[in-house]
Amino acid sequence: MGLTLAEIAVEIGAELHGDGRIAVRALGTLKGAGPDQLAFLANPKFRSYLEQSDAAAVICTPDEVPFSPVPALAVADPYKAFALISRFFDPAPVGPTGVHPSAVVAATARVSASASIGPNAVVEEGAEIADGVTLMAGAFVGAGSRIGAGTRLWPNVTVYHGVSIGERCIIHANTVIGSDGFGFAPGRDGWTKIAQVGGVKIGSDVELGSCCSVDRGAIEDTIIADGVIIDNQVHIAHNVRIGRHSAIAGQVGIAGSVTIGENCIFAGKVGIAGHLDICDGVQVLGMTMVTRSIKKPGVYASGVPHDDHAAWRKNAVRFRQLDELFRRVKALEKSSGDKP
Amino acid sequence: MGLTLAEIAVEIGAELHGDGRIAVRALGTLKGAGPDQLAFLANPKFRSYLEQSDAAAVICTPDEVPFSPVPALAVADPYKAFALISRFFDPAPVGPTGVHPSAVVAATARVSASASIGPNAVVEEGAEIADGVTLMAGAFVGAGSRIGAGTRLWPNVTVYHGVSIGERCIIHANTVIGSDGFGFAPGRDGWTKIAQVGGVKIGSDVELGSCCSVDRGAIEDTIIADGVIIDNQVHIAHNVRIGRHSAIAGQVGIAGSVTIGENCIFAGKVGIAGHLDICDGVQVLGMTMVTRSIKKPGVYASGVPHDDHAAWRKNAVRFRQLDELFRRVKALEKSSGDKP
Amino acid sequence: MGLTLAEIAVEIGAELHGDGRIAVRALGTLKGAGPDQLAFLANPKFRSYLEQSDAAAVICTPDEVPFSPVPALAVADPYKAFALISRFFDPAPVGPTGVHPSAVVAATARVSASASIGPNAVVEEGAEIADGVTLMAGAFVGAGSRIGAGTRLWPNVTVYHGVSIGERCIIHANTVIGSDGFGFAPGRDGWTKIAQVGGVKIGSDVELGSCCSVDRGAIEDTIIADGVIIDNQVHIAHNVRIGRHSAIAGQVGIAGSVTIGENCIFAGKVGIAGHLDICDGVQVLGMTMVTRSIKKPGVYASGVPHDDHAAWRKNAVRFRQLDELFRRVKALEKSSGDKP
Repeated sequence: MGLTLAEIAVEIGAELHGDGRIAVRALGTLKGAGPDQLAFLANPKFRSYLEQSDAAAVICTPDEVPFSPVPALAVADPYKAFALISRFFDPAPVGPTGVHPSAVVAATARVSASASIGPNAVVEEGAEIADGVTLMAGAFVGAGSRIGAGTRLWPNVTVYHGVSIGERCIIHANTVIGSDGFGFAPGRDGWTKIAQVGGVKIGSDVELGSCCSVDRGAIEDTIIADGVIIDNQVHIAHNVRIGRHSAIAGQVGIAGSVTIGENCIFAGKVGIAGHLDICDGVQVLGMTMVTRSIKKPGVYASGVPHDDHAAWRKNAVRFRQLDELFRRVKALEKSSGDKP
Repeated sequence: MGLTLAEIAVEIGAELHGDGRIAVRALGTLKGAGPDQLAFLANPKFRSYLEQSDAAAVICTPDEVPFSPVPALAVADPYKAFALISRFFDPAPVGPTGVHPSAVVAATARVSASASIGPNAVVEEGAEIADGVTLMAGAFVGAGSRIGAGTRLWPNVTVYHGVSIGERCIIHANTVIGSDGFGFAPGRDGWTKIAQVGGVKIGSDVELGSCCSVDRGAIEDTIIADGVIIDNQVHIAHNVRIGRHSAIAGQVGIAGSVTIGENCIFAGKVGIAGHLDICDGVQVLGMTMVTRSIKKPGVYASGVPHDDHAAWRKNAVRFRQLDELFRRVKALEKSSGDKP
Repeated sequence: MGLTLAEIAVEIGAELHGDGRIAVRALGTLKGAGPDQLAFLANPKFRSYLEQSDAAAVICTPDEVPFSPVPALAVADPYKAFALISRFFDPAPVGPTGVHPSAVVAATARVSASASIGPNAVVEEGAEIADGVTLMAGAFVGAGSRIGAGTRLWPNVTVYHGVSIGERCIIHANTVIGSDGFGFAPGRDGWTKIAQVGGVKIGSDVELGSCCSVDRGAIEDTIIADGVIIDNQVHIAHNVRIGRHSAIAGQVGIAGSVTIGENCIFAGKVGIAGHLDICDGVQVLGMTMVTRSIKKPGVYASGVPHDDHAAWRKNAVRFRQLDELFRRVKALEKSSGDKP
């Protein structure tokens, strides 16, 4: 790891103000970066940190260059430029090419010679592991599933049979893809399981956080399109479809057969009831309960923000009397002749 | 895989309208099924799909038979009939009988000769693995735990010591059974852990989704009765008891010592506070906060549905002034002499 | 396992009323304990159970001793005394010292001779495993990470590279520490990943439940201080900091860069929005949505308790008309001249 400012400028298309031979070894915050670290300023309100920065260099907009006491890399979008360069400083180890002796690869599986199959990883019959794939320790790829080129499965990820994952995806540890959807027929004698015979199709450039669950489809597939990003502990039920470039934060739950459009953003802990359609460009704030389809792009919410306990207690009790209050106000309006 | 219509008719007790020699190779949706796929119609409002179906055959009620352009299997409950036949078309691979060379089975463990112990699975001292059990790759069964006949643990499931699981259960990947309950005694110098010396008892025909947590009891056992079905990412704390045939959807959280009756249904993301009793036949809608015991069967809810952001913002602020509003309305009623 | 009452009295500093030679083999509830089990009474309202107890002995306050039909161990804080003694009766098996032949330990890893490395566990390059550490089956410790003395990782725990865990911690099964934070720069062509180059620092005497996710920092570390206790399925995003002795119940979600003080308690399913500061001594009730920083110790809440469905339906609809109602009441007040 280590790049010169000249190399960084080329990589992110920046105008360099300073000595291009200076080497950067790591990333830092604007406030905390030392003389071998690269920082960035995306928000002008932190300019005072820039003015006192000890970083090796700072990525910022052209407007901020005069305020920088250290070399500056001027770009239109410093946050994106920082994102682009950050991968050169990623400390995540790269596994060695080849199959670890403790891994178990079925005879009929096809594993690229350029893939890295870690200790105790398991690849079942007929599975396909493409070029440059990394399966880390304890990862499992079920029968007939396909992992696209450059995708990485972190340790203890479980991919069931009949799952297809595209290229350059990142699946974080202990996430499960392809478990059975929650499908049962009710009856007097209890529930009868419906075999979940669909699969899961995940596009390219998708990231899934740790401890997520993506269920296989009941009959047809569960689908996650290209460029979708998903945080930790997200539950995606059978036959959900998520459109390109949508982002889903931690602990969101999406019930069965929900369709989500492109470029949507769901904040943490949102719950979406089954069989709804959410159109493109919808943003939903944290802890919202989505119970109807959304047909218009925009921002939606329903959570109730915290209050101190004594106040909350009084108000929460009143929630249960709301309808009654409306009727009382209506009566007052009637009697006062003041109804709008 | 593959059954003739005559075989299917026998299996589900249907009256066959059509050629019994026709073979079915897979399941399909009414809309999407091709000529080797079996579909079903449970809801009359989708009859137009039936009228245009290309399926090999359709399971439907006797009333719908005249509308079917393809062979029909007439039954009283098409959804349940479809559930019953679905397992014949389940693509889930069956592991080979025996212990994989990479599995680690303790000397004192008793493993049935008909069990399938997958790659890198681990069975600890004194554990019992009954006939026809499948432990998939990386599954762990702790000391002295028992897995009943026909039960399947998907990859990377962790079963701690002192856990008993009945027959024909399905435990999906990366679920944990028997982790310590959250029991600590408070003190000025921090928390003192209370060893969780109880176990977990799970009945027969139970299904648990992926990434669930079922804690062991503090002193006595956590108990899940026969025929309970549980979706993904459900948290079941110590000493919870769940009655027969209850169903619990994704991301539900059940705090310690809650007792749930039989035939209850909890939708996604419901939270149940500790030490409550929920009687038989209770249904709770998604995202509800259950804070008192429920003694009467019926349907319960508390979530607030989404709204567009501008409207939500105005209303959410008002929630904090609710009690004040009630007092203002009361004053108006007093002054108007209009109080009911 | 097994202690005499005399030994127990010494261990918890109790005044023994009864025969010190009596042996205890297990823990029990006050109601259920048999003649070889130790029980406790912390709450006087359960005194009737004490009066009928068959336990070998009971830990209680001096005031309760006269009501005990069996030997009593009198202490000021029976609950804490029970916690202290409980570990002697913990049935959790202790793994054998040494590295299991199926474990994979990198050449440059440093593993103490007193550590127990279980079947199929994996320790990567440069990692350090201190004295008395237990890594159970399938646990993974990434490159350069450090596990402090006496800490136990239950099966299938994943610890990424660059993570440091203190002494005497307990990490329950399938929990993930060090997965990437959810950091992406937006753009017209989708999201650009920001490499998460920070690590995770966990103090000593920390407990983490099963299926938790603790993300690594974006640039600087995510930090969990000494003595923090965390239940199952908790999501801790990048750069969160949690102060000493705070307690976090199941399914809580903490968004990025949140700072939590010391001695805080968060009940189940609480959600905390990003970049907030929560001061010391804050208690938050279950399912609360925390959207602003909290600067004053105290109790906070926002959840809405359940109601029966018909009543809920009427009131929930009214929530969306709240602001309108306030305006209507204001109008009434104006016209009546009754405005406060």
